[in-house]
Amino acid sequence: MTISSQEARAFSRAQGARFVEELFAFLRIPSLSGDPAYAPDVRRAAEWLAEHMQGLGLANVQVMETAGHPVVYGEWLGAGPDKPTVLVYGHYDVVPAEMSDGWQTPPFEPVERDGRIYARGATDDKGQLFIHVKALEAYLKTSGAAPINVKFLIEGEEEVSSPNLRPFIEAHLDLLKADVCVISDSSMRTIDEPAITHSLRGMTYLEIEVTGPTDDLHSGFWGGATHNPALALVEILGKLYHPDNTIAVPGFYDDVVALTDEERAMIAKTDLSEAQFKQSTGVPDVWGDRTYTIRERVSARPTLDINGLWSGWSGPGPKTIIPAKASAKLSSRLVANQNPHKIYAQIKAYIESITPPTVKVTVKLLTTGEPALIDFNLPAMQAAARAYEKGWGATPVFTRGGGSIPVVADFVTLMQIPVVMMGYGLDDDGLHAANESYSIEMFQRGIETAIVYLEELAAL
Amino acid sequence: MTISSQEARAFSRAQGARFVEELFAFLRIPSLSGDPAYAPDVRRAAEWLAEHMQGLGLANVQVMETAGHPVVYGEWLGAGPDKPTVLVYGHYDVVPAEMSDGWQTPPFEPVERDGRIYARGATDDKGQLFIHVKALEAYLKTSGAAPINVKFLIEGEEEVSSPNLRPFIEAHLDLLKADVCVISDSSMRTIDEPAITHSLRGMTYLEIEVTGPTDDLHSGFWGGATHNPALALVEILGKLYHPDNTIAVPGFYDDVVALTDEERAMIAKTDLSEAQFKQSTGVPDVWGDRTYTIRERVSARPTLDINGLWSGWSGPGPKTIIPAKASAKLSSRLVANQNPHKIYAQIKAYIESITPPTVKVTVKLLTTGEPALIDFNLPAMQAAARAYEKGWGATPVFTRGGGSIPVVADFVTLMQIPVVMMGYGLDDDGLHAANESYSIEMFQRGIETAIVYLEELAAL
Repeated sequence: MTISSQEARAFSRAQGARFVEELFAFLRIPSLSGDPAYAPDVRRAAEWLAEHMQGLGLANVQVMETAGHPVVYGEWLGAGPDKPTVLVYGHYDVVPAEMSDGWQTPPFEPVERDGRIYARGATDDKGQLFIHVKALEAYLKTSGAAPINVKFLIEGEEEVSSPNLRPFIEAHLDLLKADVCVISDSSMRTIDEPAITHSLRGMTYLEIEVTGPTDDLHSGFWGGATHNPALALVEILGKLYHPDNTIAVPGFYDDVVALTDEERAMIAKTDLSEAQFKQSTGVPDVWGDRTYTIRERVSARPTLDINGLWSGWSGPGPKTIIPAKASAKLSSRLVANQNPHKIYAQIKAYIESITPPTVKVTVKLLTTGEPALIDFNLPAMQAAARAYEKGWGATPVFTRGGGSIPVVADFVTLMQIPVVMMGYGLDDDGLHAANESYSIEMFQRGIETAIVYLEELAAL
Repeated sequence: MTISSQEARAFSRAQGARFVEELFAFLRIPSLSGDPAYAPDVRRAAEWLAEHMQGLGLANVQVMETAGHPVVYGEWLGAGPDKPTVLVYGHYDVVPAEMSDGWQTPPFEPVERDGRIYARGATDDKGQLFIHVKALEAYLKTSGAAPINVKFLIEGEEEVSSPNLRPFIEAHLDLLKADVCVISDSSMRTIDEPAITHSLRGMTYLEIEVTGPTDDLHSGFWGGATHNPALALVEILGKLYHPDNTIAVPGFYDDVVALTDEERAMIAKTDLSEAQFKQSTGVPDVWGDRTYTIRERVSARPTLDINGLWSGWSGPGPKTIIPAKASAKLSSRLVANQNPHKIYAQIKAYIESITPPTVKVTVKLLTTGEPALIDFNLPAMQAAARAYEKGWGATPVFTRGGGSIPVVADFVTLMQIPVVMMGYGLDDDGLHAANESYSIEMFQRGIETAIVYLEELAAL
């Protein structure tokens, strides 16, 4: 029987409504990996996915234990040992979502509005990983076979920086053996400008706590001679940046490799205007280091952000206390050659050096992730470009991604294979935010592109 | 029948255990005035107190409506029109308390440990106001009469700066008519150093919100070109103080009347050493404007404190967002001649002037309270000093209180009577904090001193 990508594509279009319904079932499971209270839901999501793969005829489907949340594995090796093997990586875990963050509909009750699916995880990454499952299904249900062998490695800890994935890969190098790894967990600017990501930022995530008095104090009794920990915290964090919006942590930029003129020219192809940036984000004005373009700042330059602040009373009405403590979560997005642990040590030393003796400070590392940079002239990368031309209907650009997929560096290092990041999301899907959504048209075109990509890889 | 303070005092000692049990019942009602969800409990506390007064034989007992929480009124006018009348002011409302703040036992399930009562409101102000109720009861149950007339005005909004009390007083000047007002809602340094407060700080309480993007943003996609609202907030708040710990708001100190050498000498009598301050608060080091002593800083100088900070993610684990907004609650304790509304306008203008165009800021006034300063040579003040000598067993000092009882200025202005602040609390009772407590010995000595004070006022 001939293996036909045309038939597979036609099948995927005919079955689109069912595919979306299946995705809804997957999205209903609140698989929040960062909160221990949701551990049973994380496992339920893994089991749902494994059962689904089993039902499609994949072999050796397993929910495999790690020191944290489990990994889902499944394979179809019917193309035989002479054909290449692609390893699809994705993640079934999600970040937190609460109605109070501004969701219009409950984040774990997916709904369709105006051609978009609204739910936590819709684009990051349940919707995008599901594309590859459905592409394989389309081949198997039409031709009974796919052009190459396919393995799935879907983890449950990406949103907490994949602490157990590197050891998992090291322990299962034979099982995972493949010629190329494909990941769909990134995005394009508009639906007609597909992008292949060849660089990702790394991450150092830390928490800082400033303490002063043993308990909260009455501000009338003790105010005036007590260094308010919330004040001390803002005084410390107010010194994270220089007035020119560069990061004030000594040594922070030391290991950053300067962008070449060629790279800057490529990045310029996808630059954002100030107007576009304001439109997409809603900010009153653009900010940052003005010696770099906006696209460079959000993808090729490192950052230091405050992700959370909390101290004292935030409920209704006044409460006249001096809080006993004040805390913040900080994270730094890193670029190639920056070492997350070295950056952590630099930030910690800086914070400690500017903390006055009137309070105490503790700095704690939460997670790290390595940055990654892939050569876009590799055959598997160029095959991906052709798959977009034929399957998506547009020539892709190679871009740097501002986000972090810590495992990308691990695949390259441990498996010695190229990692091809075919992001099927849109920049304004609102991932990690309230009202995260995913375009059903993107979902459909993604499945067709994934179908063509298997054919292109077979032809290499 | 002779009116005997000795018999009343003996009765109060004999009935001490019952008095504490009754106070427990009062403390069990979570009368949080700042949170609308607790409104029914606030009313329940008012009704409990009114019923209790009624049971003791007070006349004209009423739970009187205001635009907010009700006022409890009750009177005993049996001494007749030739005798003076004292108006006892107190408040039955409390500030919030949650186990997560570090309480060892539930804040609204009072317990006795080592001679102290642990509960929210134990010292502020249920325990202290109850002293006057029990002092009157002791006279009525022994002599059948008190030496002078007594009126009670117990409000339910002190902890939200008494927004409806001034209009209430204005509307009921005849009902409330008295020769002196006594308030027990302040404290002494140690049990053997009773203090009469002759000055209180005022208050300006405000909230600030910094907004940037429309929704929370993924820090990988947008980080580097977005002015993080939490960063902008800390940059703004980090400029509230000069490096010498004086407040940087232009004009802030303009209306403060300089302390005279005589006043500074009096304040020096109750000064705290750095060691004492650190011991009482647990802070690693003392802070503030070093041109003033510690006691001056916490009572005779204005402050600006951060009472709360909140932005983004504060739950477990990492969440890599740029928060859409960041907020803070700020309050300023004011001294005589500072106008709370003028101070609000100055702080608002300063914050707006240092907010960059990359974010938006809104500043909102929550509450205000006037500062107060009373002449301690008035007869009613000197009678209070004698009451401590005879009833408490120690000569009191006249002190400035760092806290705020906004209504004190109103009593002086509207009723033209002296306000005598006989605080029966201890500086380290932990009011407004976790594990607020009240010494049972203080409670007993307070009742006896209140009994003697009525006698001293009769003799004027």
